[in-house]
Amino acid sequence: MIIQLSTDIDKGSLELILSRIQEIGYKATEVSTQIGGYLVCIGKKDFDIRSVGNLKGVVDIHRVSDDYKLVSRKWKVNPTKIDLGDGVEISEGGLAIMAGPCSIESEEQIEKTVRQLLANDVRIMRGGVYKPRSSPYSFRGLGMDGLKSFYRICKENGIKVITEVMQVSQVDPMHDYVDIYQVGARNSQNFNLLDALGKVDKPVLIKRGLSGTIDELLQSAEYVFSNGNEKLILCERGIRTYEKAYRNTLDLNAVPILKEKSHLPVIVDPSHGIGIRKFVEPMALAGIMCGADGLILEMHETPEKAFSDGQQTLDFNEFEQMISKVRKAFELHKNF
Amino acid sequence: MIIQLSTDIDKGSLELILSRIQEIGYKATEVSTQIGGYLVCIGKKDFDIRSVGNLKGVVDIHRVSDDYKLVSRKWKVNPTKIDLGDGVEISEGGLAIMAGPCSIESEEQIEKTVRQLLANDVRIMRGGVYKPRSSPYSFRGLGMDGLKSFYRICKENGIKVITEVMQVSQVDPMHDYVDIYQVGARNSQNFNLLDALGKVDKPVLIKRGLSGTIDELLQSAEYVFSNGNEKLILCERGIRTYEKAYRNTLDLNAVPILKEKSHLPVIVDPSHGIGIRKFVEPMALAGIMCGADGLILEMHETPEKAFSDGQQTLDFNEFEQMISKVRKAFELHKNF
Amino acid sequence: MIIQLSTDIDKGSLELILSRIQEIGYKATEVSTQIGGYLVCIGKKDFDIRSVGNLKGVVDIHRVSDDYKLVSRKWKVNPTKIDLGDGVEISEGGLAIMAGPCSIESEEQIEKTVRQLLANDVRIMRGGVYKPRSSPYSFRGLGMDGLKSFYRICKENGIKVITEVMQVSQVDPMHDYVDIYQVGARNSQNFNLLDALGKVDKPVLIKRGLSGTIDELLQSAEYVFSNGNEKLILCERGIRTYEKAYRNTLDLNAVPILKEKSHLPVIVDPSHGIGIRKFVEPMALAGIMCGADGLILEMHETPEKAFSDGQQTLDFNEFEQMISKVRKAFELHKNF
Amino acid sequence: MIIQLSTDIDKGSLELILSRIQEIGYKATEVSTQIGGYLVCIGKKDFDIRSVGNLKGVVDIHRVSDDYKLVSRKWKVNPTKIDLGDGVEISEGGLAIMAGPCSIESEEQIEKTVRQLLANDVRIMRGGVYKPRSSPYSFRGLGMDGLKSFYRICKENGIKVITEVMQVSQVDPMHDYVDIYQVGARNSQNFNLLDALGKVDKPVLIKRGLSGTIDELLQSAEYVFSNGNEKLILCERGIRTYEKAYRNTLDLNAVPILKEKSHLPVIVDPSHGIGIRKFVEPMALAGIMCGADGLILEMHETPEKAFSDGQQTLDFNEFEQMISKVRKAFELHKNF
Repeated sequence: MIIQLSTDIDKGSLELILSRIQEIGYKATEVSTQIGGYLVCIGKKDFDIRSVGNLKGVVDIHRVSDDYKLVSRKWKVNPTKIDLGDGVEISEGGLAIMAGPCSIESEEQIEKTVRQLLANDVRIMRGGVYKPRSSPYSFRGLGMDGLKSFYRICKENGIKVITEVMQVSQVDPMHDYVDIYQVGARNSQNFNLLDALGKVDKPVLIKRGLSGTIDELLQSAEYVFSNGNEKLILCERGIRTYEKAYRNTLDLNAVPILKEKSHLPVIVDPSHGIGIRKFVEPMALAGIMCGADGLILEMHETPEKAFSDGQQTLDFNEFEQMISKVRKAFELHKNF
Repeated sequence: MIIQLSTDIDKGSLELILSRIQEIGYKATEVSTQIGGYLVCIGKKDFDIRSVGNLKGVVDIHRVSDDYKLVSRKWKVNPTKIDLGDGVEISEGGLAIMAGPCSIESEEQIEKTVRQLLANDVRIMRGGVYKPRSSPYSFRGLGMDGLKSFYRICKENGIKVITEVMQVSQVDPMHDYVDIYQVGARNSQNFNLLDALGKVDKPVLIKRGLSGTIDELLQSAEYVFSNGNEKLILCERGIRTYEKAYRNTLDLNAVPILKEKSHLPVIVDPSHGIGIRKFVEPMALAGIMCGADGLILEMHETPEKAFSDGQQTLDFNEFEQMISKVRKAFELHKNF
Repeated sequence: MIIQLSTDIDKGSLELILSRIQEIGYKATEVSTQIGGYLVCIGKKDFDIRSVGNLKGVVDIHRVSDDYKLVSRKWKVNPTKIDLGDGVEISEGGLAIMAGPCSIESEEQIEKTVRQLLANDVRIMRGGVYKPRSSPYSFRGLGMDGLKSFYRICKENGIKVITEVMQVSQVDPMHDYVDIYQVGARNSQNFNLLDALGKVDKPVLIKRGLSGTIDELLQSAEYVFSNGNEKLILCERGIRTYEKAYRNTLDLNAVPILKEKSHLPVIVDPSHGIGIRKFVEPMALAGIMCGADGLILEMHETPEKAFSDGQQTLDFNEFEQMISKVRKAFELHKNF
Repeated sequence: MIIQLSTDIDKGSLELILSRIQEIGYKATEVSTQIGGYLVCIGKKDFDIRSVGNLKGVVDIHRVSDDYKLVSRKWKVNPTKIDLGDGVEISEGGLAIMAGPCSIESEEQIEKTVRQLLANDVRIMRGGVYKPRSSPYSFRGLGMDGLKSFYRICKENGIKVITEVMQVSQVDPMHDYVDIYQVGARNSQNFNLLDALGKVDKPVLIKRGLSGTIDELLQSAEYVFSNGNEKLILCERGIRTYEKAYRNTLDLNAVPILKEKSHLPVIVDPSHGIGIRKFVEPMALAGIMCGADGLILEMHETPEKAFSDGQQTLDFNEFEQMISKVRKAFELHKNF
């Protein structure tokens, strides 16, 4: 059960609501976000919802049968819109494209990428400065220095930055240099990180776990929301199956299902999803056609020389061709 | 290695080729199909390909490094076209739609379905008369009597019939009453059935196994081809994974990969794939957009009353709306 | 619901029972096996079980909530014992060992294997004469000629024969030359084959499918039983997962679960299960220790030269050492 | 390639070795652990190993073809022994048992558990004070206060403590109150946490990821080792598959494979593995029989009332019976 509170609720009214909930035998969690105040109430007993709904300070009250509550579409029918400023938005009915290299490598690389994005009217750049790597001996990113250059150059050009945060201690230092925090597949159930990201006022994109279920992804988003941050984006990036003909099994079934279960925008990552350069385009188009609100893509001037993930990275030319097709597919889909 | 033989090759020339192959240390399998004659030669030694290529009766010779040979695109770059007659074709660049109920239930049902197909310019009707069911106590189909009505009514209306064959002993009796034999997911590696279907001159659609790999699907097609039947269609219908938010994990990654690996047409089954009625449309659209050559769909006048699979079956109205969108998506994709 | 019928039930009594069941709104399937007669009744309504239980000809009546009925332990608490004659049995509390090559290759090979089995007091020999192979160009077995030699040599030595049957048309010809029919993983849901094996009076060992669930395996056994054959053995042989460090993921969890759900004996196949020769022994020991009633093993005089599956096949010496340990583990487990 | 350095190597000798490695074109990582100093050298060129081996300060030099290096058995044939003090060890050839509740709940609970452990000669107690939970609204553990009581009571009784660490900021505060840090399945690829645990001098048990491969588990261990901590234990705890008849698919195949690939001890967690109370015992016995060096088990005085995981937790009586059987199985296996 979710109780939406009025923004000017006084302490006495809140206490009254909390004591009523306790009487009923429910456990209440207070949630205060950028947008509003909520009580998430967990319990099993049946009771007359009006006995709470009529209390002062209660704006609305919703039963939510899902295990996740705040991210469920059962109480919030209107889709969540993420406003990044400067006219850049991520939301249902829009087409948000994020593109850039797997790893940030140099200022020159950032500048070239930014120019390519601008030329294609793409307003969000991706790029890793902290890289989760299976082997401790692999390149692990340029860190904060890289991020600062990355953010500065993007900001000068009106481009928004999305980059991966790997641990709690990075959240604060990164804060002023990101527009969207990205939580990677391996950290999809790093609950402490999710808690911490619930306490900042920047959007968070959460990738589905390596073999994460759809419900687990929504519960991970619930962690962030229940800590106070409503600015959430979900990302399908492929799951682990027995099939080895491609890198991951991009699971497009997740797109319409997530869109129905949650009010949050859903993004598809075809680069990690299928993991093979020449098949990124068809999977991107398919993602748009089954209802995704955007794409996150790996692009590099010379993929063969990329520090990481070159085999799934588009070159500038491929990117340009793909974006043109993606926009047409989006237009068609919008008119259905 | 595949050696294409001239259609008028004489016995002496063939024997000479076979003995040369044996000398080299390769094992040859003779394949004679509706279209041509081939020798599939398996071996490891390196040799001068011209020593065979120059022999009389040899039209062409191709090295194929894949484990499957005849179905590989490495030797046959041009896509295979399946001609069902009366202007109905399945092939790259086309949009083949097959629709109908999971199970054939009555003549009335067939007639209504046919009218709905005709109204939407769909020329192939699906419908099961032999049903593979997990439980022995479930409805198992109307059998040959049902098939005869099914075929008769379709034929009168210029509609082609696709239906599942479950065992070798059904192949001959069904022959005059099907336009396409369908091999179901559970029989995808029923090698005796595949052998038998290699000996008839009707197209065969092979579904990927419940947890079949892409290579296994191609090898299953190789069974049919190497027994003499080139008229093959591949079908992605969802794989088994840990995720339980939908029935199967429709694996659209398979579409561009199969299209690249093989010259055979590739069809997508979104009904079984995602298994949830309201999500069949987005997955169908996505399938077209990543390059499928057609769709196979479950449709029923009243899905709630269907003998089987009602939960994933479109009603006539939903079907109509979907087909209109699918055609638009196909047109857009064709022009890319 | 399962109704056990008296063996001498007269036609009138049976008809009365059937009409009563129909009145209640249940659908009855008549099952007549080597051991008894049953009515499997499927329905949902609640009713007084005594109204049927008191009828003439009814020995006992059991509610079975599982989807499978006759193979469930919910009605038949006592384990099923498979008697192969000559003192060879497969049953709970026993240790049934089946060993031999993947493929039957020659009479000499059979004779050597038989001697090795006798020397180790193993009474059941496995060996394939019909081989399901992914590629149509691989060795597919010696067929009926091989089987006849196989059976004759074994019979002369008091050894029982288990071999794979791949299709319906093989069931009759093989009948006089097998002691146990084996249904392979790829045919685990070949329902026509299961139907046919329900009509013969020889035991049937059913392997779990490549990615078969435990319930599907039990339903496959239900097919055979409901067609009239109670002599059934279940076999865990590894499932398909994302892990590639071994051939299949031998799923020993299935052993205690199958033992609890069903009264049928459960056999483990560690050779296919893990698929790596040196790890067959630890997995065999583990299988016994979690409650398996026996093992099926690949053994060959010179595994390096085996026609198939050499990489997972024990040589005679390894087999001997393993059997000695397996017997000790079995004795320990029996005394727990 | 791993270069073992002498413990008294002087700075000049080290620099000479490093420059030689650089000349060859390899990248060296310096590793200094509780036991020794190593250079892990990554590169592809072939060279005469003696040109480095003969340098001053080099004790030994090993080529390791695995992707992981320091945890590989290719260079360290002798098994790693973890000495917890007071005669408690974890190592090949031993039987390390760790048991206790899923969550630490109260001092009374700890005391009762400790008495039960002592009565069964079990010397390591498990118990969570930081609980990773899918839902943010679930009980998340007693935290540091709970840990301090847990450690104090155990220490008074000669019992060693293993408990889960969830994030970098917990590593230091927990240090004086744990004997073994546990890294849970969801943190198995939390690389920052692994880095941090490489810098402390306490043993670390790493659980395989939810759908982690065997190689990924070894790479995670490599992270800790390469940061300076050799005291590592690997734990198989079940993987995620399509099968839903149990909680996870305990993958005992991993045991003999990990034992062969690595010199680290391998522990099995049958409680999480199969996740069903009555089947914990058979899986524990199977684990021992395929070569595990120990078990980690959930036990609670009244599992029905446990704060978490009650459905897979043994009561005191079941634990006692199981331990007795486990010891017998271990003795039998040791004598093989």
